[in-house]
Amino acid sequence: MMATGWSLAAPGIWRMSLQAAKGITPLSFMKAQPRETALKQMPDVQPPFDWEQVHIEEIRDGLIVSFPLTTAEKLYGTGLQLMRMNQRGRTRYLRVNSDPKQDTGETHAPVPFYASDRGYGVLVDTSRIVTMHCGSTLELADTCPEHVRDRNTDAGWTATPRAARVELRLPSEGADVYVFGGPSLGDVVARYNLFCGGGVLPPKWGLGFWHRVPTLYTDEQVLDEAEQFRVRGIPCDVIGLEPGWHSQSYPVSYEWEASRFPSPGTFVQQLRAKGMRVNLWEHPFVSPNSKSYEKLRPYAGSHTVWGGIAPDYAMAEAVEQYKHVHETEHVNLGVSGYKLDECDGSELTRNSWMFPAHAKFPSGLDGEQMRQLYGLMFQKMTSDLYRSKNQRTYGLVRASGAAASTMPYVLYSDLYDHKQFVRALCNASFSGLLWTPEVRRAVSAEDWVRRMQTVCFSSLAMLNAWGDGTKPWSYPEVESIVRHYIELRMRLLPYLYTVFAAYRETGIPPFRAMPLVMSPAEIAAAEGHLAEFEQEVLNTTDAAYGKKTVREWDDQYMMGDSLLIAPLVAGETERDVLLPAGVWYGLETGRRYEGGRIVLIHAGLESMPIFVRSGSVIPMMPSLLHVPESGSPVPLTFVHFGEEAGEGTLYDDDGETFAYEEGACSWWKARVTRQPDGSYAGELFGDNQAVPQSYSTISWKFAQTRL
Amino acid sequence: MMATGWSLAAPGIWRMSLQAAKGITPLSFMKAQPRETALKQMPDVQPPFDWEQVHIEEIRDGLIVSFPLTTAEKLYGTGLQLMRMNQRGRTRYLRVNSDPKQDTGETHAPVPFYASDRGYGVLVDTSRIVTMHCGSTLELADTCPEHVRDRNTDAGWTATPRAARVELRLPSEGADVYVFGGPSLGDVVARYNLFCGGGVLPPKWGLGFWHRVPTLYTDEQVLDEAEQFRVRGIPCDVIGLEPGWHSQSYPVSYEWEASRFPSPGTFVQQLRAKGMRVNLWEHPFVSPNSKSYEKLRPYAGSHTVWGGIAPDYAMAEAVEQYKHVHETEHVNLGVSGYKLDECDGSELTRNSWMFPAHAKFPSGLDGEQMRQLYGLMFQKMTSDLYRSKNQRTYGLVRASGAAASTMPYVLYSDLYDHKQFVRALCNASFSGLLWTPEVRRAVSAEDWVRRMQTVCFSSLAMLNAWGDGTKPWSYPEVESIVRHYIELRMRLLPYLYTVFAAYRETGIPPFRAMPLVMSPAEIAAAEGHLAEFEQEVLNTTDAAYGKKTVREWDDQYMMGDSLLIAPLVAGETERDVLLPAGVWYGLETGRRYEGGRIVLIHAGLESMPIFVRSGSVIPMMPSLLHVPESGSPVPLTFVHFGEEAGEGTLYDDDGETFAYEEGACSWWKARVTRQPDGSYAGELFGDNQAVPQSYSTISWKFAQTRL
Repeated sequence: MMATGWSLAAPGIWRMSLQAAKGITPLSFMKAQPRETALKQMPDVQPPFDWEQVHIEEIRDGLIVSFPLTTAEKLYGTGLQLMRMNQRGRTRYLRVNSDPKQDTGETHAPVPFYASDRGYGVLVDTSRIVTMHCGSTLELADTCPEHVRDRNTDAGWTATPRAARVELRLPSEGADVYVFGGPSLGDVVARYNLFCGGGVLPPKWGLGFWHRVPTLYTDEQVLDEAEQFRVRGIPCDVIGLEPGWHSQSYPVSYEWEASRFPSPGTFVQQLRAKGMRVNLWEHPFVSPNSKSYEKLRPYAGSHTVWGGIAPDYAMAEAVEQYKHVHETEHVNLGVSGYKLDECDGSELTRNSWMFPAHAKFPSGLDGEQMRQLYGLMFQKMTSDLYRSKNQRTYGLVRASGAAASTMPYVLYSDLYDHKQFVRALCNASFSGLLWTPEVRRAVSAEDWVRRMQTVCFSSLAMLNAWGDGTKPWSYPEVESIVRHYIELRMRLLPYLYTVFAAYRETGIPPFRAMPLVMSPAEIAAAEGHLAEFEQEVLNTTDAAYGKKTVREWDDQYMMGDSLLIAPLVAGETERDVLLPAGVWYGLETGRRYEGGRIVLIHAGLESMPIFVRSGSVIPMMPSLLHVPESGSPVPLTFVHFGEEAGEGTLYDDDGETFAYEEGACSWWKARVTRQPDGSYAGELFGDNQAVPQSYSTISWKFAQTRL
Repeated sequence: MMATGWSLAAPGIWRMSLQAAKGITPLSFMKAQPRETALKQMPDVQPPFDWEQVHIEEIRDGLIVSFPLTTAEKLYGTGLQLMRMNQRGRTRYLRVNSDPKQDTGETHAPVPFYASDRGYGVLVDTSRIVTMHCGSTLELADTCPEHVRDRNTDAGWTATPRAARVELRLPSEGADVYVFGGPSLGDVVARYNLFCGGGVLPPKWGLGFWHRVPTLYTDEQVLDEAEQFRVRGIPCDVIGLEPGWHSQSYPVSYEWEASRFPSPGTFVQQLRAKGMRVNLWEHPFVSPNSKSYEKLRPYAGSHTVWGGIAPDYAMAEAVEQYKHVHETEHVNLGVSGYKLDECDGSELTRNSWMFPAHAKFPSGLDGEQMRQLYGLMFQKMTSDLYRSKNQRTYGLVRASGAAASTMPYVLYSDLYDHKQFVRALCNASFSGLLWTPEVRRAVSAEDWVRRMQTVCFSSLAMLNAWGDGTKPWSYPEVESIVRHYIELRMRLLPYLYTVFAAYRETGIPPFRAMPLVMSPAEIAAAEGHLAEFEQEVLNTTDAAYGKKTVREWDDQYMMGDSLLIAPLVAGETERDVLLPAGVWYGLETGRRYEGGRIVLIHAGLESMPIFVRSGSVIPMMPSLLHVPESGSPVPLTFVHFGEEAGEGTLYDDDGETFAYEEGACSWWKARVTRQPDGSYAGELFGDNQAVPQSYSTISWKFAQTRL
């Protein structure tokens, strides 16, 4: 295999081709179009190592590419990891898997991209499984006396090596390897996203509240439940239908079940009249009892799943068939999007299900590749379909991978640990992914509230009642708290939409783990004396290989530049929060905090710790029962926090079509200045329009300390 | 790759060679010598399928060999599986792993051998990881209408396919594939064991009670603790030392730490004078501070573990160095054997540690192969060393694989779920492995007793107090119960030793899962109306892919032909027991049970459910503080149970050397007949000696219903 050497692929991004033959990869399949203009505006940069320090070694069935690692370096990313944030010391086996219950690297959305807090990142662009030894290995040549410690007597002994290199195992046919420059970790991730085409801008309605109904509900039951939201005055923008809408499911038909949905077009319009859109669940495996079966049968893989065929969507003909049935049966009826389930597969649960890695597909892909790509394929097919109608979609997907940042899809999981769900929200931000910590049920009213609070501050605020039949009002004693947070999300919609628009333009993710906004030095300074977070226990049955407690701040995150979210989970009434430098206010308490340190926050059930940066100017709107349609403007208020002058941004467009790509959109700066008399003034600077189209009036609130 | 076609490898065993080049494999490395004579005495047999039904297919990086599967067929084996007994429906990824916390197939001792209850077995002999799709896949060509069910409405839907074939993924260089005939499942397993050289016969002292002391104990502390056993009158044959005996550990030195063991030879002899042997813990990774380092350094692999080198024991020179240091430093001092830890490796715990799969070794093996073989290598090196001294050893190992049945080693794990430990005891029996459900600590006195009861009916009865400092008397309120079961094990030693001798001769494992002793029809008949054991739950968050409760009888087992052990775990006071046909007695209660059905047993803490088959004749001895030495004969009693005539067996030899391989051993039949007057008579028929050398007197007890 020939190494091409490193060449510049885009500003601050270098590529080395290490492959025998050009095959289908995430970057090529997704037709990633780097956003060159935005990349050119980023700082000039070089990687923090010499190219000679990158080693390439052939092995029996692949290649090892390795990068130097410094002692304190932390490594983030590798996709939707639920079990930890810093991947240093771990071997990541990056296979798509629907049951990421163990810390192997397998996940719904593995991404062979890691980002170092030294300010660089590495991507392997391949359709195959990559193993990333993220500092979990140590070569004999790199082994020094300080690596050798006596566990018998040395309390500093650890089971994981102080590795000198990251070793990446590429598949036998090789791959392209990319290095992304910084200088900061946030810049590395922004570059990765921009290289993949930038972040997605969802339709506005996608940022409202979502509710999925029980799987066997009929049209009348769905309409009744939708009406309950309106009667109770609880916002809802999207109703999701689960497997029961199919005439057959597991495997699926993609056809409406006539006994439950005799008139699907009417049903969709009836919900639309209530201001609600319909989202349809589906999975990849097509039933012989579906009309699509005979048409897709020629493109079927060698193995079935639940008796259904697994079509090969690397074949253009199969894609056309899929799009045709979705367009005529759903999209033309007004369906707004999909929940793309089970494109992941599992060998880990009580039940094994998926075509095997050796399955054969007509395009020449095998089962390993198809499984790694399947989630991307369904995302791309459906988003291309909606794009062809000049209509934005937003939906859910259970499998994803590299180069997915442009996709209007949010990941979810059948797992349900609340802390893991918050960690996933943090970790998704390192890999161009979005995540919803969906709420399904609760063990108590407290659990219900805490989960609802979290999901309202995520990419997709959803109650998924498919199996449990829960409603936002399922715990009457806390209904008002739940309603409050759903309404707060609605009020913040202009801010959140702007945050997503920035994702599209700059590659900076809407929800951000703390290492993306604070440097290692800033985090260390804020932690100060809290070195006791690190404790090693050794030589007990409970900790046979040691048990180190390291605080990773994987339980809090930024939503945009101004808001810091620090969820609590059931059982907690207080928590530590890492605040970046500056002055912060409790968004709902008005309490003032000096940042650049760790603060202990007490919060009753009615209160979720949210912090707003002093000087922020946040665009807000009234809480409505659903996101306003294009052409129905609503009042907008810029809320300014703290005593100093400040500036916010507002983005606006029609919220539904792709006209913004042709320039039908605007950015405003909302600048608050302090007058000599101590009063404040607000001014809006737009780039091409006087008044944002979605808003009827503009008002200002100055020097607030709370909402 | 050329398939050779099937040829007879031994009676009832067929081989097909599917490999590019002959490399190191478990069968070749272990130098497995099939026990032809015993195999010839087994029934003539053919596999229950046509050879044409075995398919071979080339894939990109390997071969798929597949076997037909019938609807009701169950598949057992694949090594030390802790999570389930019937592997049907699962994809088994057979990598050595020290943290088998999830049901992936990875385990300390993966064995690419499965045995079907249709009466055949399949082995893949390779040093690489094999993936066995044990009915977890379904080809399109095999998919029929009955595979397609509508989960929306059909309560019989299941997530796992009703597969038509087992698909085995061989590595790219291929492998030899073996088919083992039956006719019964027990015969299949016996053939596998005999083909691998037969079962191991441990030294008698190995079957006594073992105690491992805290890791940093000094010689004096060890001697004090040993004396406590003698003072309290609790049997103990072996004292195990943990990492602290090394001058350095993690990585290890193989040298005694002078501050804790200033005079190791004296120390070993002092314990020996108390009737106790010494077992030494070690692992593979050699410290630069060890004298062995420079000698082993030329044979080191490319990667270190905990700073220590991983020597390549496929190199004869490395083996010689290893043997030399072990012989001179330990064996010549009287050390009886080893606990071979951490030859497995993990990426699954909080800590990743092991050389990677791409590590390179001087012999040409890579890290994948070395990890798959490492456990076998250490077993073979140490057992060869003891054999060269005409001295049997018995010890512990944490990794094993195929062709291990001749090895004097018992597997253990850092996991600690009591039910999983019992299941492992059952499952080990399908794959030529031995297992100890070692006791380390307990959450309560009840837990302590239940675990102690189980371990006393396993291949190695051990308390491992390395990290917790527990003693058999740690819970004074239950000390008498614990003592009772340790003593019961000592009393049963002549029986247990005979059971192991039968393992050696016939390949029938000493501890046997129920499917090895009852046919599918017998189990089904006994279960009778209990079809309600199978319950499918669907469409809830808790059971997104269904939750089927199937009783597999993976919590009870036979010890030899006569005793059925049905452990309870903490929290249980009753349980169902599957009894084979015939009459059974509660060994300690004397209650009579009709077999061929399921009985509900209530058992207080002082009582472990053990059943003895009516007609059994069990050789027993007094409970001693340790197993008697060769030349110190003790009284023997044959205990006959029930009303009918019966027959038992007794095996005897010197208990310590390999003289038995040269014929210095004997088998007796102990026959009990009923006289016309209703009384009983016992008679001993020996094959070459009048009186077993280990026993001073022979007595009989007839028509007992309990001990």
